[in-house]
Amino acid sequence: MAAEFSDLDRRMMERALELAALGRYSTQPNPRVGCVVVQGDRIVGEGAHRKSGEAHAEPLALQAAGSAARDATVYVTLEPHCYHSRMPPCTDALIKAGVKRVVCASLDPNPKVHGAGMKQLQQAGVQTQTGLLEAQAHELNLGFEKRMISGLPRVIVKIAASLDGRVALANGESRWITGEAARADVQKLRAESSAVLTGIDTVIADDPQLTVRDASLETLGRQPLRVVLDSKLRMPATAKMLEEKGETIVFTAQQTGGEAIAHHGAKLIRVSADADGRVDLDHVLRELGTLQCNDVLVEAGPTLAGRLLQSGLADELIVYIAPVLLGPDARPMAQFPRLEKLSDRLQFALHRSETVGADLKLVLRPQTRTHSQKLP
Amino acid sequence: MAAEFSDLDRRMMERALELAALGRYSTQPNPRVGCVVVQGDRIVGEGAHRKSGEAHAEPLALQAAGSAARDATVYVTLEPHCYHSRMPPCTDALIKAGVKRVVCASLDPNPKVHGAGMKQLQQAGVQTQTGLLEAQAHELNLGFEKRMISGLPRVIVKIAASLDGRVALANGESRWITGEAARADVQKLRAESSAVLTGIDTVIADDPQLTVRDASLETLGRQPLRVVLDSKLRMPATAKMLEEKGETIVFTAQQTGGEAIAHHGAKLIRVSADADGRVDLDHVLRELGTLQCNDVLVEAGPTLAGRLLQSGLADELIVYIAPVLLGPDARPMAQFPRLEKLSDRLQFALHRSETVGADLKLVLRPQTRTHSQKLP
Repeated sequence: MAAEFSDLDRRMMERALELAALGRYSTQPNPRVGCVVVQGDRIVGEGAHRKSGEAHAEPLALQAAGSAARDATVYVTLEPHCYHSRMPPCTDALIKAGVKRVVCASLDPNPKVHGAGMKQLQQAGVQTQTGLLEAQAHELNLGFEKRMISGLPRVIVKIAASLDGRVALANGESRWITGEAARADVQKLRAESSAVLTGIDTVIADDPQLTVRDASLETLGRQPLRVVLDSKLRMPATAKMLEEKGETIVFTAQQTGGEAIAHHGAKLIRVSADADGRVDLDHVLRELGTLQCNDVLVEAGPTLAGRLLQSGLADELIVYIAPVLLGPDARPMAQFPRLEKLSDRLQFALHRSETVGADLKLVLRPQTRTHSQKLP
Repeated sequence: MAAEFSDLDRRMMERALELAALGRYSTQPNPRVGCVVVQGDRIVGEGAHRKSGEAHAEPLALQAAGSAARDATVYVTLEPHCYHSRMPPCTDALIKAGVKRVVCASLDPNPKVHGAGMKQLQQAGVQTQTGLLEAQAHELNLGFEKRMISGLPRVIVKIAASLDGRVALANGESRWITGEAARADVQKLRAESSAVLTGIDTVIADDPQLTVRDASLETLGRQPLRVVLDSKLRMPATAKMLEEKGETIVFTAQQTGGEAIAHHGAKLIRVSADADGRVDLDHVLRELGTLQCNDVLVEAGPTLAGRLLQSGLADELIVYIAPVLLGPDARPMAQFPRLEKLSDRLQFALHRSETVGADLKLVLRPQTRTHSQKLP
């Protein structure tokens, strides 16, 4: 059912998407949703979901419209939910307000909804249309969608490297390869994420805080979960991140120990070990999915980054490239075993590139391996 | 003397720059120059220099204008030359045509001209102005300008690498890391250059032709000079490039030998050796300057690329980045000795970036080292 949309429809959905983006840093684990109520060509109500436990976009917009919602067209970036959660169903609110038509950008991937919301509206006599600016709506909620469909979070690997793919000198010096603007951009990536994940080697070497410190980002008090992969429980109880606001989870393959860091506030999760005795990454991601993590930002060293990228567990790779050369003795950005054929290379598609200060930011998404593309 | 230019002036000089760019692939060793003759707001004559030994832009434009050149304004991207070469002075032609005003984008860096052309026009009663769209005009003739000022060619190092800065697998496999569009773009780089330079290791490993094969590029029959650095005279007489149209020069530090390749058409130039017994790069570049090379494109392996980049002899670095990872065992893009301090890194400024097919093209220019920037 390829729907025909007017220019007015498009403009209104663009506004709804802008409203949805207001929740970029705050709605996790919920999706970002925006809603606009329109009479003729005039907006009579707007709403944006901002925080889990607070009002959804649709009732906010209907409330703003008041009696003007009757016979209105409602534009919403995600299908209204139709079941009783902490919030009453948004479908009920739309029906009760007497709206005439509901246009949504994308269906809710949540199996409890996925089409049922639109159907409920239709059965109540509301006209419905789906798919307007759908691609843009998806981009807002990639992590939420993946979790709803697979139970796993979306994994974003972030690397700051030189032009020649190096993240530190041979002696370990790495502060700073990229500039201030790139580091400020990483604050946004963190704020957008449910969790920031790193490896124990990074904790021991750099003692990072992994927090959002840019007060201009509207996180509404939220700090992403900090996650440390610490197969052998080497995490020091003095690690800075344990003193920060928000929660720290330490995944370990050890079945005992860890009392000291637990005493300092870390939550320990014991998972299975892989063949090399390291925490099993699939297991870790399943646990993070259960913990309602939509987007997990990985800020780790070359070993963990390489494991995630090579295993196909990463959904996105963000590389900040500084326009510098560090030379062949410097440390590589991603460790993985030697390739014997070019067709075995890890292949990505460049999704977006932009300059950030003096550096370049590349957003890449994995492609199927080249050799599998050659198969019939 | 900051001149005030009108919008008309700007539009006309933009047109002159477009005309100059027509000679992008053909004017070497001459500069690219375009010229527009204007009466009121109407173009009455246009000209572009296309090939050494053929007419200059100004007489072509004046000829096209005919009697309409009288009292006209002439826009020219480079100061008209004022001395007798193979061509009569363009200043004479402008004066003889009775033009009223000459606007030029940049002064001729050739010490035989540099301001003298404009002065000659002034003395003949012609109004003159300089500096309109000067930066754009410089970009057209960076190599010519460098050679006129220093006697040395401009050196552009081109590298095709993976995201993690690798140019080949450990086993040497490198065909192809970047895609067809990037390789087609390299044809343009070659066509823009006076010479394409490589090292003997690349000749032995890949046996490249180093020619412009894209017939759509208007080189007017020109092939860039092929230059091989071959310290120990290992060049095989069967090298493909020796069979190609155009000239091949082999630089060697050996004072004897090379008869076989000379017999197959290579021109041998014997230069001094550096401390490691390799051809002295300064000496090579001085010779290429004497041979009227404006722009030398380096398509070499990591050793030669690293030497040129680290020694500060490269004026530009062009990196085509394929969105792939090859891993830490793959071969690095530029070899140079280990750095002990981040402040010793090779620092560039990102001049331009664009996508070329699935790959990214970065144009970078060296900056002074960071540590020297910190000095008062």
